[in-house]
Amino acid sequence: MTINKNTKFLIVGLGLLGGSYARGLTEKGYYVEAITRGKSSCDYALEHEMVKKCTTEVDEAMIKNADVIIFALYPTTFVQWIEQYGELIKPGTIITDVTGVKGCIVDKVQNMLPPMVEFISAHPMAGKEVYGIENSDERIFYGANYVVVPTKRNTDEGIEACKRIGEILGFGRISEISPEGHDEMIGFVSQLTHCIAVSLMNCYEQERLERYTGDSFRDLTRIANINENMWSELFLMNKEALLEQMELFEKNFTALHECLKKDDREGMMEMMRISTRRRKQFDK
Amino acid sequence: MTINKNTKFLIVGLGLLGGSYARGLTEKGYYVEAITRGKSSCDYALEHEMVKKCTTEVDEAMIKNADVIIFALYPTTFVQWIEQYGELIKPGTIITDVTGVKGCIVDKVQNMLPPMVEFISAHPMAGKEVYGIENSDERIFYGANYVVVPTKRNTDEGIEACKRIGEILGFGRISEISPEGHDEMIGFVSQLTHCIAVSLMNCYEQERLERYTGDSFRDLTRIANINENMWSELFLMNKEALLEQMELFEKNFTALHECLKKDDREGMMEMMRISTRRRKQFDK
Repeated sequence: MTINKNTKFLIVGLGLLGGSYARGLTEKGYYVEAITRGKSSCDYALEHEMVKKCTTEVDEAMIKNADVIIFALYPTTFVQWIEQYGELIKPGTIITDVTGVKGCIVDKVQNMLPPMVEFISAHPMAGKEVYGIENSDERIFYGANYVVVPTKRNTDEGIEACKRIGEILGFGRISEISPEGHDEMIGFVSQLTHCIAVSLMNCYEQERLERYTGDSFRDLTRIANINENMWSELFLMNKEALLEQMELFEKNFTALHECLKKDDREGMMEMMRISTRRRKQFDK
Repeated sequence: MTINKNTKFLIVGLGLLGGSYARGLTEKGYYVEAITRGKSSCDYALEHEMVKKCTTEVDEAMIKNADVIIFALYPTTFVQWIEQYGELIKPGTIITDVTGVKGCIVDKVQNMLPPMVEFISAHPMAGKEVYGIENSDERIFYGANYVVVPTKRNTDEGIEACKRIGEILGFGRISEISPEGHDEMIGFVSQLTHCIAVSLMNCYEQERLERYTGDSFRDLTRIANINENMWSELFLMNKEALLEQMELFEKNFTALHECLKKDDREGMMEMMRISTRRRKQFDK
């Protein structure tokens, strides 16, 4: 299957990400339908002309009509959906997702799908601290990272189609990684950083801090404003990888802590030189 | 001494902060002179009309001419300067600073000054990841926090004058705190966050990360691009307070780590609810 102007998209789950996919694809002239649990999200999407059709019930005709189905659900809900309704998907359909963990999802979903239905997993590295379709915005994707997570069971065609979606939505860098590599990296760059922000905000009551904070503290804790249902699920579903990343961070933090304890200025400066060199690369 | 339109300012040290003070005060119509070590900074300040006069040598006449002297030096350099030249400051002068640590500075400087010279310490909570007068910009102060750090030896008049400087420069919230309170808070909101960012960037080579980072990782590590000379000095000069804050953070991070290890979802969610509630207050 190659994505072209006649490709019909179905989005399952109109939250922040699903809504942003709907806006982005519709704006680029694609035909988009949606299934979402809440009536108010459905109404919102129709009112704002983000989709052509929307239902709150799983609709067989809609599923059969789709060439590409994008799942924008919590990881466990996604797996349950496939268990329950996966057999309704017609051969030749490509399905993809936005799930923030991969190891415990991708194999499971690929195993459950009917023959000739290809699941090619993706992770759009974009978001906001606010949730729901009302906050959706296709511009969060512009220039952001988009990671395609193929397994041996994926075809070149499926991988290409998945990348094409990233291009259509305006992502900046599109890359490929294995499910295990994904979970390690996401454990580090996304989940660990949320752990840090949450831990920081747990240290003190906020009233004491507000008067003294500069931009660095504000930037560092922006993500401490967190959806506890989603993130605790993501953490648990990526438990082993995240625990490893937490330990790696603790090891490095302890090294700096020890340098300070021992008045080892050169040791601290060396860590700072490394961090500066690496961080500067990001802004190039 | 009350600050009015005829008040003459002398800034010692034209780096990022000293330069931004010079720009801000000059723009508001005040008379500003400067002493700074590097000839190029001196030339830059004169060329850009940030000051009326500038020298690279400590100039007695200039010191005697000043009503308010603002020191924008590294902490140790500031103390050395006062040791060497403090006696040149004329009675009635108010001196202030921008130093990021207070406990080991304020008493020492107050003890060394000639009679009738008041040192009232301040910490402008604003900065950039770039250094030097070329990057100075008075707008970094607009709306930022400005903390005045008086001791028992300060007069109401001195405290008022110091606050007035913060107002002139356009700071948002101006507050007072003791030197010990300052160092504890700064250890937490500023130094600890830099420790975290540096430790994070030390975990991996950057090439592996770049393709997978979202905004949260970028925001969290922005301050990992760090001036190692200045920050290692700041850390060491605030060693006890910073060690305490590092331990407090480690305790909270370990608590989250333990929750994840034990699959304690409710424990994680409770920490996330606390962090969300506290962080939301910041954006009000």
